[in-house]
Amino acid sequence: MADRLVPHFQEELQQLKTRLLEMGGLAEDRVRSAVEALVERDAALVDRVLGGDGPINQLHIEIDSRCFKLLALYQPMAVDLRAIVAAVKINTDLERVGDLAINIAEADKRYMRHSPVKELIDIPRMADIAQRMLRNALDAYVRRDVELAQGVLDEDDALDALKTQVFRELLTFMLQDPSTIEPALDLILVSRHLERIGDHATNVAEDVIFMVSARDVRHHAREL
Amino acid sequence: MADRLVPHFQEELQQLKTRLLEMGGLAEDRVRSAVEALVERDAALVDRVLGGDGPINQLHIEIDSRCFKLLALYQPMAVDLRAIVAAVKINTDLERVGDLAINIAEADKRYMRHSPVKELIDIPRMADIAQRMLRNALDAYVRRDVELAQGVLDEDDALDALKTQVFRELLTFMLQDPSTIEPALDLILVSRHLERIGDHATNVAEDVIFMVSARDVRHHAREL
Repeated sequence: MADRLVPHFQEELQQLKTRLLEMGGLAEDRVRSAVEALVERDAALVDRVLGGDGPINQLHIEIDSRCFKLLALYQPMAVDLRAIVAAVKINTDLERVGDLAINIAEADKRYMRHSPVKELIDIPRMADIAQRMLRNALDAYVRRDVELAQGVLDEDDALDALKTQVFRELLTFMLQDPSTIEPALDLILVSRHLERIGDHATNVAEDVIFMVSARDVRHHAREL
Repeated sequence: MADRLVPHFQEELQQLKTRLLEMGGLAEDRVRSAVEALVERDAALVDRVLGGDGPINQLHIEIDSRCFKLLALYQPMAVDLRAIVAAVKINTDLERVGDLAINIAEADKRYMRHSPVKELIDIPRMADIAQRMLRNALDAYVRRDVELAQGVLDEDDALDALKTQVFRELLTFMLQDPSTIEPALDLILVSRHLERIGDHATNVAEDVIFMVSARDVRHHAREL
């Protein structure tokens, strides 16, 4: 790109990053609220999550249009090009995380029609891990920090192990007492939604590694 | 872009489309096989699905790198730029569909350890709809056909209704006979995976509408 354009590009790229962080913060808040509402059986908070996807959806559209503008106007190359394409993908991932917060809230709503199956310990723990993964993946994007991104990939196993544990425990309840079947199903769904939030954080982390190093860590590409 | 580059760009764009169709075909085949294996209780076919994600993963990497090359080399504008960015997103969606075929096959494997819960009718029907949505969404991309893309969006409701029906029916089985709880859970998961394949087709269709008309139909953007 022409030298005179570079300062503007860097400034707009900075704004794009700020917006992505903002969107990540909103997505994280919504996940936290959806899980808190489940733990506290807080129907009003469930409704706030269900009705509160406007700001994230607006950011989704705004970020996409910023990416198109940056591509069309500055025609960036190399790491800058990869940063914009990564932003397009990360934007999609964050929007899906927002959708998953809604899915969790829908499960909350059904769950609260029944007596609690058990005290919830592992599900809030899964939510903490998924939120941290998401936050670290976005920080890694902003700081172009491959090591931090790699850490996100490593955390995915912990989330997976908790999901399996939640499933086994709830299955035991369901087999012992059929009245727990319906609510336990919703808890299983919540744990799957949290696992998928971790998957989205993993996608972001993989995009960061590719952006910085042009090395594709998906599908163990090095081995292909 | 410079006029002398245009023929090369159009040729490479054509190759990109061909690759996306190829990848879509592979994804569709894998979903079909995963559901056929479930219906026929075909353990060998399950294993083929579980072990067969190499080609799709290689295409995923190849298509991504074609998109970067097209952006960096030709610096396309307007609808051509939107077509490349759409390809990046569609590529991600198709790769996820491939992953979902694996998730279905994993559920198949667990399901086949138990006696069949029931004759499977709605799940193959869901698979047919999801596959058709995917195929039409990709055709719409290649032909830049907004009407066809809109049809894909309309089909999503049918998929959703079947998912709810599958869930209710299986819940009845689980409540009546606890020995069906474990296998019925896997069928519920399969129906959720098929619903998500429909969601990916929906994403593709929305990208097509945006690509052609620069009109964002996500989140009812017109109303914002």
